[in-house]
Amino acid sequence: MTVALCPGSFDPPTNGHVDVIQRSVSVFDRVLVAVIKNPSKVPTFSDEERIEMLVELFREEPKVEIDAFEGLLVDFAKERGVDVIVKGLRAVTDFEYELQMAQMNFHLAGIETAFVAASPEYGYLSSSLVKEVARFGGSVDALVPPSVAVRLKERFADG
Amino acid sequence: MTVALCPGSFDPPTNGHVDVIQRSVSVFDRVLVAVIKNPSKVPTFSDEERIEMLVELFREEPKVEIDAFEGLLVDFAKERGVDVIVKGLRAVTDFEYELQMAQMNFHLAGIETAFVAASPEYGYLSSSLVKEVARFGGSVDALVPPSVAVRLKERFADG
Amino acid sequence: MTVALCPGSFDPPTNGHVDVIQRSVSVFDRVLVAVIKNPSKVPTFSDEERIEMLVELFREEPKVEIDAFEGLLVDFAKERGVDVIVKGLRAVTDFEYELQMAQMNFHLAGIETAFVAASPEYGYLSSSLVKEVARFGGSVDALVPPSVAVRLKERFADG
Amino acid sequence: MTVALCPGSFDPPTNGHVDVIQRSVSVFDRVLVAVIKNPSKVPTFSDEERIEMLVELFREEPKVEIDAFEGLLVDFAKERGVDVIVKGLRAVTDFEYELQMAQMNFHLAGIETAFVAASPEYGYLSSSLVKEVARFGGSVDALVPPSVAVRLKERFADG
Amino acid sequence: MTVALCPGSFDPPTNGHVDVIQRSVSVFDRVLVAVIKNPSKVPTFSDEERIEMLVELFREEPKVEIDAFEGLLVDFAKERGVDVIVKGLRAVTDFEYELQMAQMNFHLAGIETAFVAASPEYGYLSSSLVKEVARFGGSVDALVPPSVAVRLKERFADG
Amino acid sequence: MTVALCPGSFDPPTNGHVDVIQRSVSVFDRVLVAVIKNPSKVPTFSDEERIEMLVELFREEPKVEIDAFEGLLVDFAKERGVDVIVKGLRAVTDFEYELQMAQMNFHLAGIETAFVAASPEYGYLSSSLVKEVARFGGSVDALVPPSVAVRLKERFADG
Repeated sequence: MTVALCPGSFDPPTNGHVDVIQRSVSVFDRVLVAVIKNPSKVPTFSDEERIEMLVELFREEPKVEIDAFEGLLVDFAKERGVDVIVKGLRAVTDFEYELQMAQMNFHLAGIETAFVAASPEYGYLSSSLVKEVARFGGSVDALVPPSVAVRLKERFADG
Repeated sequence: MTVALCPGSFDPPTNGHVDVIQRSVSVFDRVLVAVIKNPSKVPTFSDEERIEMLVELFREEPKVEIDAFEGLLVDFAKERGVDVIVKGLRAVTDFEYELQMAQMNFHLAGIETAFVAASPEYGYLSSSLVKEVARFGGSVDALVPPSVAVRLKERFADG
Repeated sequence: MTVALCPGSFDPPTNGHVDVIQRSVSVFDRVLVAVIKNPSKVPTFSDEERIEMLVELFREEPKVEIDAFEGLLVDFAKERGVDVIVKGLRAVTDFEYELQMAQMNFHLAGIETAFVAASPEYGYLSSSLVKEVARFGGSVDALVPPSVAVRLKERFADG
Repeated sequence: MTVALCPGSFDPPTNGHVDVIQRSVSVFDRVLVAVIKNPSKVPTFSDEERIEMLVELFREEPKVEIDAFEGLLVDFAKERGVDVIVKGLRAVTDFEYELQMAQMNFHLAGIETAFVAASPEYGYLSSSLVKEVARFGGSVDALVPPSVAVRLKERFADG
Repeated sequence: MTVALCPGSFDPPTNGHVDVIQRSVSVFDRVLVAVIKNPSKVPTFSDEERIEMLVELFREEPKVEIDAFEGLLVDFAKERGVDVIVKGLRAVTDFEYELQMAQMNFHLAGIETAFVAASPEYGYLSSSLVKEVARFGGSVDALVPPSVAVRLKERFADG
Repeated sequence: MTVALCPGSFDPPTNGHVDVIQRSVSVFDRVLVAVIKNPSKVPTFSDEERIEMLVELFREEPKVEIDAFEGLLVDFAKERGVDVIVKGLRAVTDFEYELQMAQMNFHLAGIETAFVAASPEYGYLSSSLVKEVARFGGSVDALVPPSVAVRLKERFADG
């Protein structure tokens, strides 16, 4: 049984994230989606909200488990018996940073990273761009799942 | 059970190829290594020789099977029940071409591609560079497995 | 009135080419689509066939004119009163080559080049990849316009 | 009539910005240059100063209009009847970010983006690099127009 | 006699930095290693500590001198009679930024920059990644020289 | 004394090549410029012509010596006592290929490669592009030295 780990900030999850997780589900036996808790950054959505959004999105998918971690990714991966880290790639600048991280993670703990190509129509999506659109009242309906769109509207109506 | 497919020209296999195949073995349940038979190119080593070299290299690895194909990669992949195509990535120019192929293969047959990062010390290896070194009498001992080094010396001693 | 020039081999035209030409039509007053006749290459489709395919595709579009040329692009552009050369960009490797050509063309004749971003879903398309799919009997129906798909089937049924 | 929009921070305008605006003038019928007012950043020059510098630079150019905006670029573009957004490209990392923005802007509002190649001799220019040179007393005379050079000297003499 | 300058933040020096300095020693007659003092950033290690670490590392190397500077690199380089600035390159994103800086430095003061390829096994190293590993208790023993590893453990045990 | 080696096809030498060689002269004590004799390619100018053109261009430069070689670059470099190979870099695609070659050459013979940034105004130059311009009667006067321009006109007047 192959366990894949999809780590991310998911602040919030976009259709691009959902695409990468679904691609992982189609290849691996179990997919652990893990929210990175970064104490030195203030996210738009709290750790709890980001976990909740992912739980809602993958409620019907028995292969997917949602979790969160703080610290080194490889420590969490070893603790949870992960076989491979899965990352989506959109662009060359992604690729270079992710290649550096993959080689460091292999050096630190012998854990492999597999990259999957995001669907081309999600290539221009990022959580920060989606938040900028939402902040100025643009429509994010085609960019994030419906449950996330609702939360984005609430958050930026408040702000 | 997840079946991975590692396609390539392997003309000849280098330490970089062996590294990618071994990384696939560590992640997936079965690994099908497939020599691409390209009728419009004259390879340095014949289809049979390339298959033989791979068989010799992975004789002790029960998860690996060696095969060859002609035609569309996705047709071969479907026929053999492949879950995911695995490609090694070394450089940005690799990445762009491989991303294009991955998106085309997903479009044609819904088959995923996973990219693994080659070990950094193999980043400068390619079959054509290895052959150029061998052609001019340079040592390829640290670049290819011993059994391949022997064949390279024979081939270019002939030439 | 701004006249744009879309040069290309169009061997054959793909949905990606059609997308770039339509984007040019939406921005510029007239769009001259020009087939490059390269005497040192043997194309899959003759100059006449490539012109015919483009004429069929843009018959209903009054802003578009189809032509062909041999020699330096900038000489043809000056002769035809072109204000700007338009090229589609898909990937970083495209970008570097096209930037070099754009700077050379500006140096030679003071003619500007404007790059437009191809639709993300056409990012993995190229004439040569489409021909490879057709050669092995794969479906090209979502990759090229219907009239081009017919010609591809005929061509590779012959071959 | 084709209206082009050149958006930017212009903090301050460099010879590279002037080059891109002049290239736009040579291709399009009208060129709207728009200062981005970003309330979450403290610029070196205020919104008013940045507008003033641009007005001074293009006083003699009847096709150019200077403006400023806050919020989504595409909302401003639609409000002002813009046909195409024009961005200068210098490097691959520029290209990837700008391609992402272009695809998002097309998705949000159907507005095209055209990229023009900056003159090679301005390829190494950026507002932040120019400010770093000025801050330490280096000469910026060949990097920005004379009127901007005067303002940079005043600003960093103060600081 | 050719004097090379290796500038950097060295916060802290990694095995990758040591590799680039040793490569410079093998090519040039004298190598000036200079710590950049950046008053607008708070480094992890003070200017004095970073100088000390470098002095310790190159104590036995008579061709190497350690120094520090504030302000424009080219002013420091001219003052110290430098013939060439040497930078290590790991990745494409490095390359683009460094090419821009090299062209600016040549423009400002006519000083050349030479790039050397870092050893592939150090391609994934950066000071910030090393600090992240140390912060969470991972082993940095293969990433930095022993004397730097000791200081990293002390620093993050404190924090 | 540091001996630099500038290898190339120089078919023909362009202003970009001259720029890289002059930059090498300004940094190193001696500069060996070496024409690559590639028996598997038919150059536009013969080995003798390419050597002659370089001899004419650097007649007045006592630090420069012109030579030619066949076989592995590192074998020639060791035979001639070379300390460092110098290559000009224009673009990212150049960079990746050259980085791969540099790492291979260091692996094979412990010889360093230093990359110098070509002047930005020569970034779009290549021998093949220059020949394409000359072939169709375009002016190459700003692209190559006068003595090379004369030979290009003769060659393509013949053809």
